[in-house]
Amino acid sequence: MDRWKGRTALVTGASVGIGAAIAKELVRFGMTVLGCARNVEKIQKLAAECQSAGYPGVLIPLKCGWKNMLDVNVLALSICAREAYQSMKERSVDDGHIINLNSMCGHRILPNADIHFYTATKYAVTALTEGLRQELREAKTHIRATCISPGLVETEFAPRLYSQDPVKAANIYSHYKALEAIDIANAVVYVLSAPPHVQIGDIQMRSSEQVT
Amino acid sequence: MDRWKGRTALVTGASVGIGAAIAKELVRFGMTVLGCARNVEKIQKLAAECQSAGYPGVLIPLKCGWKNMLDVNVLALSICAREAYQSMKERSVDDGHIINLNSMCGHRILPNADIHFYTATKYAVTALTEGLRQELREAKTHIRATCISPGLVETEFAPRLYSQDPVKAANIYSHYKALEAIDIANAVVYVLSAPPHVQIGDIQMRSSEQVT
Amino acid sequence: MDRWKGRTALVTGASVGIGAAIAKELVRFGMTVLGCARNVEKIQKLAAECQSAGYPGVLIPLKCGWKNMLDVNVLALSICAREAYQSMKERSVDDGHIINLNSMCGHRILPNADIHFYTATKYAVTALTEGLRQELREAKTHIRATCISPGLVETEFAPRLYSQDPVKAANIYSHYKALEAIDIANAVVYVLSAPPHVQIGDIQMRSSEQVT
Amino acid sequence: MDRWKGRTALVTGASVGIGAAIAKELVRFGMTVLGCARNVEKIQKLAAECQSAGYPGVLIPLKCGWKNMLDVNVLALSICAREAYQSMKERSVDDGHIINLNSMCGHRILPNADIHFYTATKYAVTALTEGLRQELREAKTHIRATCISPGLVETEFAPRLYSQDPVKAANIYSHYKALEAIDIANAVVYVLSAPPHVQIGDIQMRSSEQVT
Repeated sequence: MDRWKGRTALVTGASVGIGAAIAKELVRFGMTVLGCARNVEKIQKLAAECQSAGYPGVLIPLKCGWKNMLDVNVLALSICAREAYQSMKERSVDDGHIINLNSMCGHRILPNADIHFYTATKYAVTALTEGLRQELREAKTHIRATCISPGLVETEFAPRLYSQDPVKAANIYSHYKALEAIDIANAVVYVLSAPPHVQIGDIQMRSSEQVT
Repeated sequence: MDRWKGRTALVTGASVGIGAAIAKELVRFGMTVLGCARNVEKIQKLAAECQSAGYPGVLIPLKCGWKNMLDVNVLALSICAREAYQSMKERSVDDGHIINLNSMCGHRILPNADIHFYTATKYAVTALTEGLRQELREAKTHIRATCISPGLVETEFAPRLYSQDPVKAANIYSHYKALEAIDIANAVVYVLSAPPHVQIGDIQMRSSEQVT
Repeated sequence: MDRWKGRTALVTGASVGIGAAIAKELVRFGMTVLGCARNVEKIQKLAAECQSAGYPGVLIPLKCGWKNMLDVNVLALSICAREAYQSMKERSVDDGHIINLNSMCGHRILPNADIHFYTATKYAVTALTEGLRQELREAKTHIRATCISPGLVETEFAPRLYSQDPVKAANIYSHYKALEAIDIANAVVYVLSAPPHVQIGDIQMRSSEQVT
Repeated sequence: MDRWKGRTALVTGASVGIGAAIAKELVRFGMTVLGCARNVEKIQKLAAECQSAGYPGVLIPLKCGWKNMLDVNVLALSICAREAYQSMKERSVDDGHIINLNSMCGHRILPNADIHFYTATKYAVTALTEGLRQELREAKTHIRATCISPGLVETEFAPRLYSQDPVKAANIYSHYKALEAIDIANAVVYVLSAPPHVQIGDIQMRSSEQVT
């Protein structure tokens, strides 16, 4: 991870769950992380945690405003990727890296009507990541494009999805040991650590106990 | 197609291209078609055509307002499916049929940066159709869910996509004989004509000359 | 189907189930069908049936020797496609059609350990059909390549898969009305009937009651 | 990798390329590696290399006899997985790991007729790995199933594929910097190093310059 020290990362959804874990890890490895979310206070708290832990990098909170699932998962992701690529071009950065948070739901459809729309947004992420990768190759850059596709991760996802039904929400994580946010952050670190000529395009990961 | 005579169909995007061809075919088979699009006048013209051709059904124009690609291809499709299903439930219709217009782009990613976002919306359609199918099965209905996935069809798609570049738009259809809108309408008729116990889930079709 | 009258078709697995239904349909439409299988007597019986029904075509039995699943589903299919294409080239046939029997199992993995190897052979068929299609396009022919991907069909498949356990075999078809062999034959007829410029690449079909 | 020290691994195709790189890495991490291939002498040479490098593990050559592509890629892989699982069951090993070498060709079809059959075998590997994973979950074991899906890797693959055409073979690796065998071995190490509750199911990786 040495080559990323002192460089800048934009992490969306950085206030909780997977985004927070990734932001923290990157600060730990000495990166300047712009952490964005609707709830800026939570990121400020996270920034303070990083500082007191003595991490070499820094976390800078940013407010961003997307709200509904389709906008966040598809539109915001597309716009962020476009702007990141644009910014790299302008600064002649040829070894940048764009990592999209996908899901196992981007690859197969589970028999649960509650998550079919979520699944559709993740199928879109699968297509967007590969499209982006092709575009970056056509443009002869060495910027890498990756998506990480976790199965069930113990985060605020279920409590938010079933906010009207806390018992159902709690139940989601009771059947087996799910992945943790840090597992995804570790995958991000692995992907960033690969030698520049190696592009990990997708990591599909699930709990060792997840059946579906 | 006899069993569909006199029944009602909702056809979105009915003003031009594939939607218009489908609407016309269904009217020809005696259905009452609600044709919706932003441009109602074009549907009115189509309705007049159907009438002068002596088709047994009727085409009723409806104005609908979705505009950008993500809203039309993903959100509107989801909402229409939900409302159609809701309406069938209320009227105890157990043999209805929801047909989503997908694309070969819902199944594989072409090396053309201009259509990567379109591709993402169609990946979403693939997931939504299978999600819908599962939901209809779980609910023990016999309502069928289908998507039709054509490759290049000679329609207003290219002229719209490249509205700033008419030469490029014209070129799209010059390399080989593309599918025609009526080919897709025929696939819709085939799908509707299948015996009630047969659900065609997806028809992937391309011009016999399309390489990609 | 008029343009296929008097022409020759090779149908593998023609002694029972889907193959027999397809062979019969093609004879009914006036084709000369070479029906091949290990059990030639059954095809002879089928040929007699076609004749007494007054079908305009003719069914000619052929013995072929493939036996285990990997050889039949992958190797034999590849060899037959290669030989059919070779034969068309030699006879300057530019409008032939190669149809591979795939399965919904060629597209998604069911949680049933008994059919995982079968599933793997059908994933191979998905790849082989698209590979063949690309090859035919590159070669500038108009020969079409199609696969048909049915879900559960009531045939000898289950009795053979569970030949040691007839109760389990019988159970397979007791949960819901499965597809029938004729439904697949009808899909073949639809695919052949499409205008020459239309290539149906895949038809995914399931019983209207199949959940998975 | 500490928890794998002293344990036994079976590595197929261990005489050259990716298999050799993986075998070597695992010996370097202290594992007892049964390396199997048709050419045992090459593995013996590799074992000597490991020894003179002072690696803590040991490499034991095994002769195995599969030859053609379908048998090696599909049948041998299935049999090895079955036997490995059987052996783990008998020895009550609940934390074993079965890693299948897949390919990006197991996920999308390249427009190159020379590799369509290879592609079909890799589609089968995609299905077999997920089928195996489901079976291991159903059986309530914590044995993990993974496939690694590299794009072009500079190995003996091209020289073998184009053994009649050395110029073409050499050309394959001249267009851009391909992945190296060690990159795949590193992915194997990453997958093995993940905490026991984390199962990486698939790593899709390509050279940062590979367009397709």
